[in-house]
Amino acid sequence: MSTSRQLHFNLFLHDTGHHEASWRLPEADPHALLDLAYHQRLARIAEDAKFDSLFLADSPALFGEIGRRPQGGIEPTILLTALAVTTSRIGLIATASTSYNEPYNLARRLSSVDWVSAGRAGWNIVTTAGEAAARNFGLEDQPLHRARYARADEFLEVATKLWDSWEDDAIIADKESGVHTRADRVHAIGHRGEYFSVEGPLNSPRSPQAHPLLVQAGSSASGKAFAARWAEAIFTAQPTIEEAQAFYADVKRAAIANGRAPESLKVLPGLVPVIGETEAEAREIEAELDRLISAEFALAQLEKLLRLEPGDLALDRPLPRDLPSEDEIEGAKSRYTLIVDLARRENLTARELIGRLGGGRGHRTFTGTPVQVADTIQHWFEHGAADGFNIMPAVLPSGLEVFVERVVPILQERGLFRTEYTGTTLREHYGLARPANRRELAAVG
Amino acid sequence: MSTSRQLHFNLFLHDTGHHEASWRLPEADPHALLDLAYHQRLARIAEDAKFDSLFLADSPALFGEIGRRPQGGIEPTILLTALAVTTSRIGLIATASTSYNEPYNLARRLSSVDWVSAGRAGWNIVTTAGEAAARNFGLEDQPLHRARYARADEFLEVATKLWDSWEDDAIIADKESGVHTRADRVHAIGHRGEYFSVEGPLNSPRSPQAHPLLVQAGSSASGKAFAARWAEAIFTAQPTIEEAQAFYADVKRAAIANGRAPESLKVLPGLVPVIGETEAEAREIEAELDRLISAEFALAQLEKLLRLEPGDLALDRPLPRDLPSEDEIEGAKSRYTLIVDLARRENLTARELIGRLGGGRGHRTFTGTPVQVADTIQHWFEHGAADGFNIMPAVLPSGLEVFVERVVPILQERGLFRTEYTGTTLREHYGLARPANRRELAAVG
Repeated sequence: MSTSRQLHFNLFLHDTGHHEASWRLPEADPHALLDLAYHQRLARIAEDAKFDSLFLADSPALFGEIGRRPQGGIEPTILLTALAVTTSRIGLIATASTSYNEPYNLARRLSSVDWVSAGRAGWNIVTTAGEAAARNFGLEDQPLHRARYARADEFLEVATKLWDSWEDDAIIADKESGVHTRADRVHAIGHRGEYFSVEGPLNSPRSPQAHPLLVQAGSSASGKAFAARWAEAIFTAQPTIEEAQAFYADVKRAAIANGRAPESLKVLPGLVPVIGETEAEAREIEAELDRLISAEFALAQLEKLLRLEPGDLALDRPLPRDLPSEDEIEGAKSRYTLIVDLARRENLTARELIGRLGGGRGHRTFTGTPVQVADTIQHWFEHGAADGFNIMPAVLPSGLEVFVERVVPILQERGLFRTEYTGTTLREHYGLARPANRRELAAVG
Repeated sequence: MSTSRQLHFNLFLHDTGHHEASWRLPEADPHALLDLAYHQRLARIAEDAKFDSLFLADSPALFGEIGRRPQGGIEPTILLTALAVTTSRIGLIATASTSYNEPYNLARRLSSVDWVSAGRAGWNIVTTAGEAAARNFGLEDQPLHRARYARADEFLEVATKLWDSWEDDAIIADKESGVHTRADRVHAIGHRGEYFSVEGPLNSPRSPQAHPLLVQAGSSASGKAFAARWAEAIFTAQPTIEEAQAFYADVKRAAIANGRAPESLKVLPGLVPVIGETEAEAREIEAELDRLISAEFALAQLEKLLRLEPGDLALDRPLPRDLPSEDEIEGAKSRYTLIVDLARRENLTARELIGRLGGGRGHRTFTGTPVQVADTIQHWFEHGAADGFNIMPAVLPSGLEVFVERVVPILQERGLFRTEYTGTTLREHYGLARPANRRELAAVG
């Protein structure tokens, strides 16, 4: 075991928990989603436990059946900015769409979060599948998968050029001469591309981290190619260690093929910890949550996800044989394949599949005692499956509290997780350098 | 004097002050623009003095000559969110452009600021003049003045529909039945217009204020027509009481013509307080600041603003006779006319005009002792020129400190300004109702 390599933990904030029925538990505040104080409390717990970062998912639409669980929260850059003020070290990763934003606005906003948080901003880059979002932006249907990724690629080109449009030494603040900023150190970018024409410069100086930490979560072929070029961390759903190892090797190889060091791309599978004093107790916690899922409602959602008609699925039968292949799917390709593969591999009925999805939506559930969960984390970490984990408690805050009180100390004792922050920026937590100014690179090269 | 009608004060946050040379003063921190703690300090001072609101201007571009004063700050919704966390009562008004945003994204973000601040969000609606911004969004030149306002009008239609897409009683959070939100209380908006097609609903419930306070600042004919329809507060530059009275009467009449109560639209002229123990001391403070302006640089800026060629202006001569009329100007019409009128009326040389503009850019400077400044404020307030003021200290924080320590207590003693907040939301501070749900209005009417 290397003493220098350590785990990275990201807390995936998700209302009262990742289990869709968590809001119905007696302990849950069903109005938590819109409650700043609640999120401040979660952030405090994660920072006290020395987590690398907090993360919020997002989509510019309401989707699925409205009503069965809380939906429609606070926009991530806004909520994470509010959390920046009451924390001092933990990173803040906001999801934002390249399909439904303009690069100038989003680059500026992320730079602003980096300034306000003194270098703790991250961006989970999504292309936003689904027609619900498209129809909020003047489109009848979502752009094709390939076009979404082509736009995302150019979006990142523009954003990184904008973040580098001020040189680090542009501001001299010379009161005597009256020169605040050296105009020859601030540059137009003059970008003319297929999707965007952006003149620049950005209306913010180069921020503490220069670029926010770039995170990506799609695991389709286009998603992985995009990640290999741009991402510095990947959130991924990997239900078994074998799949996680194959994915890990695959994306590290792809990073190397892009001329990058494999350590410059951190892989964080999703982990749903379900922890009990005994294994039996942990299993009972899991079962109790699944009983709260409305099976009828979940069945309708599953049918929609699998592009089936209402009535095509039966609760106690396996999935039909003739489902579409991933190639025929335009949105959320990797999620689709993961779910179908999971059902096929374990020959699950629709009801069993719903239980698995309701708990963690295809992410790996680590169920057991604190030592068992710590052992599994260590095993994945030391066997080429993960650089860390995206922690997705089924129930919040209790699932997080148990994890930080019982599992984290074991990993710290084993030298696998930090006991104090050594850096102040999100990049420093993940062991990633502040990017050199690409404009300077271009001039030299 | 009515005891019920009271002044409204908005603090226009602007780096080290509204005077362009303020950053060069010995007391100034030339890095203040990007400093969260600095802005928290200003917010605290304004909230302790019971101001109605804080305000940040913005444009999605860097413009003018880069370098002579700090430029490129923190995006307003981000900075004001950070300030929301360290304040509890003061309102937070962010500038955002209808020309360079999508209504779904901006409506969502403003709703989020309203949630995080518990009902203190305001939106200064701008259409963003200038080609610098246009060229950051794929356009070669700015959209025409008329088209910008047509888009702004439709933008507001879409935004208000989105803010009303959830009924106030949509969330029932019934753990027993598993129904969190009543799907029949959340509505698509199905907007199909000239500029936007937006299906909705918004991905956030109706916020504490329902709609952020709507603020507008353009004073062109289109700007006033827009304000009469949508704005609940107007920030305006009025150099004399006569002009302020005419403007005040004009927009109140226009509001009435739109079927609105005149009190539902508050008029706040800009006020640059320059305060000394004696009138002579106040004048000396003013002169000292003007001496710090780089005349050569300001001359070039003035030429640009007036659509002249470099060299067309001489520092110690009046403006040329043959300037374009407002009709020929496509951006910032009212600012252009104000400046030309000011120079003509007082027969100012370019140097004198620069001094006036450097101090407050055409806003009214109230120079004198605390009692003189309070008297002028009262006079404007009681003679149909203002419902309150947009306070624009030439130097921050000192100009704000003097104003709140010396002028505000006089106005409080006279019963013209609150000594405690009576409400908790921004709308309550301005005496404006939480909007009824327009969807419900439509169903009834």
